This record gives sequence, C-alpha cells and structure tokens, in this order.
Amino acid sequence: MRTQYYTATSLDGFIATEDDVLDWLFPLGDPSTSSYTAFVAEVGALAMGSTTYEWILRHGEQAEAKTGSPWPYAQPTWVFTRRVLPTPAGADVRLASGDVRPVHAAMHEAAGGKNLWIVGGGDLAGQFHDAGLLDELIVQVGSVTLGRGKPLFPRRVLHPLLRLVSVQRMGSGMVELRYEVERMPAGAVRCR
Amino acid sequence: MRTQYYTATSLDGFIATEDDVLDWLFPLGDPSTSSYTAFVAEVGALAMGSTTYEWILRHGEQAEAKTGSPWPYAQPTWVFTRRVLPTPAGADVRLASGDVRPVHAAMHEAAGGKNLWIVGGGDLAGQFHDAGLLDELIVQVGSVTLGRGKPLFPRRVLHPLLRLVSVQRMGSGMVELRYEVERMPAGAVRCR
Repeated sequence: MRTQYYTATSLDGFIATEDDVLDWLFPLGDPSTSSYTAFVAEVGALAMGSTTYEWILRHGEQAEAKTGSPWPYAQPTWVFTRRVLPTPAGADVRLASGDVRPVHAAMHEAAGGKNLWIVGGGDLAGQFHDAGLLDELIVQVGSVTLGRGKPLFPRRVLHPLLRLVSVQRMGSGMVELRYEVERMPAGAVRCR
Repeated sequence: MRTQYYTATSLDGFIATEDDVLDWLFPLGDPSTSSYTAFVAEVGALAMGSTTYEWILRHGEQAEAKTGSPWPYAQPTWVFTRRVLPTPAGADVRLASGDVRPVHAAMHEAAGGKNLWIVGGGDLAGQFHDAGLLDELIVQVGSVTLGRGKPLFPRRVLHPLLRLVSVQRMGSGMVELRYEVERMPAGAVRCR
C-alpha cells in the first residue's frame, strides 16, 4: 500500500492555469501509452481538494456517457472542503476537512490493501507530505509551459530527498517521472 | 547553429531559490554522466542576465583554481544589464541591454557557426523566445522541489508547441529533457 500523488504538470511546474483550465493538457498525452489504466486499477481510495472535485463534476460528460454518472471513480473518495458540496448519485464521496492524518487512516482502512491516490491539488499533496504520509510522486510532464497557474507541489523538499525511480517517455508531448519520497527513520537526526 | 536555453531546474520549475541560492542543485548531478562537456564544446557564444553573471563571478573559485581567472568561459559572452558591471581580466564579456534581436545577430556573427547558449535567467530566455529566436530548451530536472524561487521560463508556450525530442536519466537525482521549439512558418495562420 502506497500513498501516491499522481498528476500531470507543465514543464514549469503548474498543474492548471490560474483559473483552473486544463485544456492545454489534453492534446499532449496519448491515452494508449499512458500509465493511467494500470495505475488506477491498483488504487483503493482517493483524496482530492474541492477545486479538483468540482472540476471533475463540471467535466463529467465522458464518464456520464459510459456509466450514466458524471463521477468516474468506483473507489471511495475523500473530498477536502469546508463547504457542503453536492455528491453525484451512486458516488462514494465523503467530505472531510482539517488534518489529513485521520483521513489517511480511514482511506487506508477502506482501500483493502490497495494504493491511496492523492489526486490534487498541490497543496493537499503537500499536506500529506508534511505529515510524512506521501510515498511517491508520479508526474506526467507535458511539453508546454504555462508561466503562471496552480503550483504542482508548493513545498521545499530537499531533505528527505526525492529519488527518481523511473522515466517513461510518451511521444513528444509528455514524459512520466516517478519519484519515491525517502523517509527518515523515526527519530533520525537530519544530517547534511 | 541553434539557440539553446540550457539550464537546471527543480521538478516544480524553479532555477534558483528566491535569493539565488543553487546549493540544492549540486548534490543531484553526477558530472561524469552530464551532457555539459559535450554541450559546451558546441557553443560559440553565450548570453546571460546580470543575476546569473554575478552569481558566476561570486562562485568562480573552481574556474580560478584551474585557469587563474574566475571566469569559466572562453567564448564571447553578452551580459544583459542596465548597470556598469566589472569584467574579469581576460574574459570576453560584453555588456548589453534592451532588445535581444541585435544581440542575437552579434552572437551569431561571433559564434563561427556554433550554437548560442542562453544561460539564464528564465525571463531572458523568454525574451529570446518572444522574438522567435529560441530553438531548444535543454532542461536538467533535479529530484527536488523548491516551492518558490526564480522561474524556469515565465512564459505561456502552447502554440507553437514544444516538442520533447530526448530524455536522458542521470541516476536518481536528475533527468535531462530536450525540447525543440516548433517554429511557425512566416505568415502561417495559427489554427485553434
């Protein structure tokens, strides 16, 4: 069971424009060469922020055409928000707020040994990292720059390090980089 | 002859911290597997901003130990600045300001058919791109995030596209991504 931040980003580190537009992303990836199908098959629970959640609801046509529901995930999903948000019929969506640690424990409990996917945004993934709960960053770097927008991961992560474990080029529009977060043993002294 | 922006960046798109510290960078790359030696051998002229220039002068000990001069480049170098800056003895450094296009023409003239290296920062590289003069981005992505700092390339580049042409992993600390800037033919209509 691993806790994974799996996301796409521009080369300059933005996961969306400042007004949460993702149109720039879709021409870049070829779904047939993407890791998504294999990735999501191993996911047992999801967490996301409300911006991500509301984006998915607004863009649910494709999921709706297939399943009748605009909600694309069968797995239980925790949505971090301080508001009361609508949930689609048939979707296992649970609203949460505050400390990510009890939510992580509940996700773990629900996931049946499968992985936990932190969908985004970047600050939510950062909160899981702050709590020492993030195991991997899996980042599809699109061949664009945005110049400004929503940050990939608004944290300074130098110690413990990220470790690049795989690189998968997907044509000329995208490359997937997988990083493991090196964990400090409990009580370890940080040397440098 | 190609005009190349060759630089290192954090995964989240920063080439330096907000106070121009690069210490995070040096543990990441293994010089023996770096593309730098082969790259710089094909460079005929350089351009950089004053922040980059002054950083190089402040950190010239290694060059100085080898050559007696803190300046590491044999090639003619244009430094963009509105100030009068000191130049090291024996260094072919030319101060410039304003429009990048006449400087690019002078670099081209001086480079003897070799490539032109835009060293940084990101905005200077962006100015060459704005003028339609940038051919390649060659980016070493280090396995760290900085969260904030000096941006890699503060431009929105969606059309014309960047085209990922090569991916070279350098251990677990770095991966080099090479992009070609797709040029629009003169007078072309931008579709979409």
